[in-house]
Amino acid sequence: MNITALEKTALSVRALSIDAIQKANSGHPGLPLGAAELGAILYGELLRHDPSDPAWADRDRFILSAGHGSMFLYSLLHLSGYRDITLDDIKSFRQIGSRAAGHPEYGMAAGIEATSGPLGQGISMAVGFAVAETMLAARFNTGAHKIVDHYTYVLAGDGCLMEGVSAEASSFAGHQGLGKLIVFYDSNKITIDGSTDLAFTEDAAKRYEAYGWQILRGSMYDFGEIAELTARAKAESGKPSLVILTSIIGKGAPNKQNTAGIHGAPLGDEEVAAARAHLGIPGDFYIAPEARDYFRAKQAEWKKIRADWQALFDAWSRENPEKRREWDQFHSGRAVPAALPSYRAGEKIATRSAGNKALTAVAEANANIVGGAADLKSPNAVGLPAEAGTWTKQNRAGRYIHFGIREFAMAAICNGISLHGGFRPFCATFMVFSDYLRPALRLSALMKQPVIYVLTHDSVFVGEDGPTHQPIEHLASLRIMPDLRTLRPADAEETAEAWAMAMERGSGPTALILSRQNLTVFPKADPNWKQNLRVGAYIVRQTGDGTPDAVIIATGSEVGLALEAAEKAGDKKLRVVSMISKELFESQPAGVRNAIVPPGTRAIVCEAGVHSGWERWAKPEDILSIDRFGESGPAAKTAEHLGFTADALLKIISR
Amino acid sequence: MNITALEKTALSVRALSIDAIQKANSGHPGLPLGAAELGAILYGELLRHDPSDPAWADRDRFILSAGHGSMFLYSLLHLSGYRDITLDDIKSFRQIGSRAAGHPEYGMAAGIEATSGPLGQGISMAVGFAVAETMLAARFNTGAHKIVDHYTYVLAGDGCLMEGVSAEASSFAGHQGLGKLIVFYDSNKITIDGSTDLAFTEDAAKRYEAYGWQILRGSMYDFGEIAELTARAKAESGKPSLVILTSIIGKGAPNKQNTAGIHGAPLGDEEVAAARAHLGIPGDFYIAPEARDYFRAKQAEWKKIRADWQALFDAWSRENPEKRREWDQFHSGRAVPAALPSYRAGEKIATRSAGNKALTAVAEANANIVGGAADLKSPNAVGLPAEAGTWTKQNRAGRYIHFGIREFAMAAICNGISLHGGFRPFCATFMVFSDYLRPALRLSALMKQPVIYVLTHDSVFVGEDGPTHQPIEHLASLRIMPDLRTLRPADAEETAEAWAMAMERGSGPTALILSRQNLTVFPKADPNWKQNLRVGAYIVRQTGDGTPDAVIIATGSEVGLALEAAEKAGDKKLRVVSMISKELFESQPAGVRNAIVPPGTRAIVCEAGVHSGWERWAKPEDILSIDRFGESGPAAKTAEHLGFTADALLKIISR
Repeated sequence: MNITALEKTALSVRALSIDAIQKANSGHPGLPLGAAELGAILYGELLRHDPSDPAWADRDRFILSAGHGSMFLYSLLHLSGYRDITLDDIKSFRQIGSRAAGHPEYGMAAGIEATSGPLGQGISMAVGFAVAETMLAARFNTGAHKIVDHYTYVLAGDGCLMEGVSAEASSFAGHQGLGKLIVFYDSNKITIDGSTDLAFTEDAAKRYEAYGWQILRGSMYDFGEIAELTARAKAESGKPSLVILTSIIGKGAPNKQNTAGIHGAPLGDEEVAAARAHLGIPGDFYIAPEARDYFRAKQAEWKKIRADWQALFDAWSRENPEKRREWDQFHSGRAVPAALPSYRAGEKIATRSAGNKALTAVAEANANIVGGAADLKSPNAVGLPAEAGTWTKQNRAGRYIHFGIREFAMAAICNGISLHGGFRPFCATFMVFSDYLRPALRLSALMKQPVIYVLTHDSVFVGEDGPTHQPIEHLASLRIMPDLRTLRPADAEETAEAWAMAMERGSGPTALILSRQNLTVFPKADPNWKQNLRVGAYIVRQTGDGTPDAVIIATGSEVGLALEAAEKAGDKKLRVVSMISKELFESQPAGVRNAIVPPGTRAIVCEAGVHSGWERWAKPEDILSIDRFGESGPAAKTAEHLGFTADALLKIISR
Repeated sequence: MNITALEKTALSVRALSIDAIQKANSGHPGLPLGAAELGAILYGELLRHDPSDPAWADRDRFILSAGHGSMFLYSLLHLSGYRDITLDDIKSFRQIGSRAAGHPEYGMAAGIEATSGPLGQGISMAVGFAVAETMLAARFNTGAHKIVDHYTYVLAGDGCLMEGVSAEASSFAGHQGLGKLIVFYDSNKITIDGSTDLAFTEDAAKRYEAYGWQILRGSMYDFGEIAELTARAKAESGKPSLVILTSIIGKGAPNKQNTAGIHGAPLGDEEVAAARAHLGIPGDFYIAPEARDYFRAKQAEWKKIRADWQALFDAWSRENPEKRREWDQFHSGRAVPAALPSYRAGEKIATRSAGNKALTAVAEANANIVGGAADLKSPNAVGLPAEAGTWTKQNRAGRYIHFGIREFAMAAICNGISLHGGFRPFCATFMVFSDYLRPALRLSALMKQPVIYVLTHDSVFVGEDGPTHQPIEHLASLRIMPDLRTLRPADAEETAEAWAMAMERGSGPTALILSRQNLTVFPKADPNWKQNLRVGAYIVRQTGDGTPDAVIIATGSEVGLALEAAEKAGDKKLRVVSMISKELFESQPAGVRNAIVPPGTRAIVCEAGVHSGWERWAKPEDILSIDRFGESGPAAKTAEHLGFTADALLKIISR
């Protein structure tokens, strides 16, 4: 270990961070200054990576959970040779067009493994990375060839550890004995409000011990110690490790270090000058020559590591052609079409149950589907075929994951599994509890990860569990999240197609909104309905010929209700449209939309949720919705109590 | 302690729960059967309460955090003499109109202290109850008279302990040394999916020890032990206590107890018969005479306790008339009007800063306002006047609360403070992180608690922090939550009024949506604008006379942008409307709405968020919105990059 080079690297991280933040007049110097030494040894010595091939499948992963310290990451990516982060990016830190955005954004530059910033989610996604590693290793490694063997490193701060999502994920990681997860805890005892003594005096080490983690302690500023602790973390294969590094926030800024003032504001000209004098930084955006030389020399070493792995991988490929084909399929990002279950019109089946049949078919065709529920395997109906097995300490090849009653961590872990590569994760809970995981769902969307969210019990038709369990505003609130695709199928046949549509979507998450109650499979007048469904809506049935008197737009279980009302409406010419995805349909060209909902024709909307968002299609008085919290009672009685019935719809139609 | 009576009470809880759930053919027998003994001793011996006066301010509180076990609560409320839960309610458990709803619903019956069911939130709200108790005690108790002196009891299950929100709240409770919080942990090792070994093998006791709690252990089925452990919990005044009671889920159902099958499904006829035989239950909805007699005899004892307190309170009132006046004010539920800050047109001030001025004024007038932020006191601008002090172990009279980086627990704790009575809590975070606390916000709304949520950094005008910190879909997603009032003031003057409106609202939560960036105070053409604002929208300015060519509806910072565009639009007759609360305005009679936005007049909408919901007022092409995630860059550049400028609005106007 070249201590001088590491020191000069740390110096350069400080210099770049100070200047980038000062120039942007915005950013968080506290972390990059306080943890620069860890960064130096991490990118120089600890990470098994090759900056010239940042997509190398067996690289170690590093996730900056404390994403506000983004200059830490950008400095090190640049110094260690990741081409995507140039000095110009750093000089235009936090400006439009710079890959050095305010917080690390996945997809912006190779080397950024995850979008972080919303606290607690980085470490939770890292758990997912570690899960995925075990899953790949169990499937593809052989006695002769260990082609999957890498670590997941995290840098987390006080904020990450205070957030509940990290508690959920860390308990899960301990339970599952994720030995290749190594979390460095930058323990500087300072948050935005001041000392952690204000709100956070728990014994975090003891808590993590209680989760089943190995606890290690040291100083942020002792390279030898960090190296030794990391070795011990790697040596413990049965437990994740929390490496608590005592640090000084903003270290190097002589007057502001160790204060809350340096957490999230530029140093200011005076303190920049003081820090430069104190640290010996000779100029703007300084990179020490020793650091440049060090990393230049490192490239060959890393390329060799990468090439050795490639040789191993090639040998493995030759000896295991079938595994290799599967590997390629796992990593292709493309789904294999499945033979979907079929149904007869008139069958009564809940779309959650139809969802399970579809999931089974899709999971049989796609061995890289993994996932589970937050302790609702049977109510959410997301069991996998028995041969898929359960992912446990003992069976890392298992595919069903028991996440526990931890919705938020579940979703964050699925983000991590997806980001890692190789798998298509799904997760499930009651739709009303999509609120619990919403912040992670937003990151799925922002990172364009094709995670599939199975959300069952999708309306007041949940019945007896009452308003705490009956979604009202959730469908509307999911639809408006950018890049999330929301699909609410109306019967078992549509559910099968919805699963296919979710699988076809290679980029961005999909929410499958499914019913608890049985729905009757209805006949489809349109022979091409499956294809037409893919624009987001299709015509289920039209009574009478020619231009309809009105179009009834419904989704999910309300399509059946619309059909019932249309039936009762007698000689009116009514067109019933199933709009499986409102936002998808609204994104279609006018021609496509007009063919389904002709402009100038009266449209009536029926959906068991808030009306908001439907005014594009119908007048307020032509929307049958539920704009209040629900009630506890049997489903039909509850709907009646809320005035949400076929008769109520009929009344609107007849008006 | 009359052991026989307690045993017969437990038997009656089992009998009522079995039958109610069987009759409803829906519900969760696992908890009421498994924890019946705790229920018996809790309602019979431990709680200091008076069922004939369930609103008694100094009663002990009990929160059933595992709300799915609602029959536990209903059985005990009925048995112990709370009049709101009749045997008929129990016989119509989970039916429309029954006060015995699927999950306990606050407001449905006296004795239900909080709505529970969404896991983890009950215990977190209980932390708020315990906070409020210390706050009242510190303000009102005197050396001679301890009029506030009660405990908060909780029954929590494995699910409650797995959820991240309980981790946040429990860490906070430990930090704050809430000695009068006593949590019974029903440790039955079974969840819906099966054994807790599937996902939850952490050492929960050690974790709570790490939080700073006292840990006690015993059996659910030993009355003497429970009494002794509770005495030890009460004796420890500096730490909350976790009393771990080993239990058997569904105890008494001989074939189904200790299985996941009994968690959430009726026993079925056969098992009902077997349980009756096993337990010695002679008939339907059986209440043992010994239990009836026991609780009948208890009433006088409880009335005496209540009367003794009343005498104490009366004596205290006589000796401390000023305190008494303050007590009444605290408990009146009414806000005292404050002298709000005023501004001059042209002043530039962020609405978050104006919010702090208003909060200061309101908090000076209303000493029962307490609250704080999730480690963002200064960024959210929610500091209180210095004399308000900070609520800490050492200063229980303090009013500012450092919640730590725990948004979800913060909101749940505020719900608890509000439910407890006496205080008007507020809490604050960045608007984008309203997603983190959304499940608690929903409970505020469902329970109609007037908690005030201060959500700052309300749009892409946040700037450099980028898409993880820029709200896009949040404003729309907040507006559609039933019973939540969303207010987005457009300048400092409106912000002062928004705080007043929030305080005037005695029922239901309010979200104050405030800007990070400076906004210019604009002149208001309408002399009655403050009054008119209270319908949700008013006319800021109209260029030209007579019927306008178009109405521009804007909110928050976009009102300034609309005024700028209207200015540039030359001789067009334009009306600019500030719609501080879309949902409030939409709830007005047609006459009120039409006076602001005349029907038939072209309306244009401008808001820095998704367009959804605005189609009621404008055609899609007349809505200037942001329907994608944001970008990291200085605010103005970001807005320009996203095409969200006065010029873009002008283009729409000129079309």
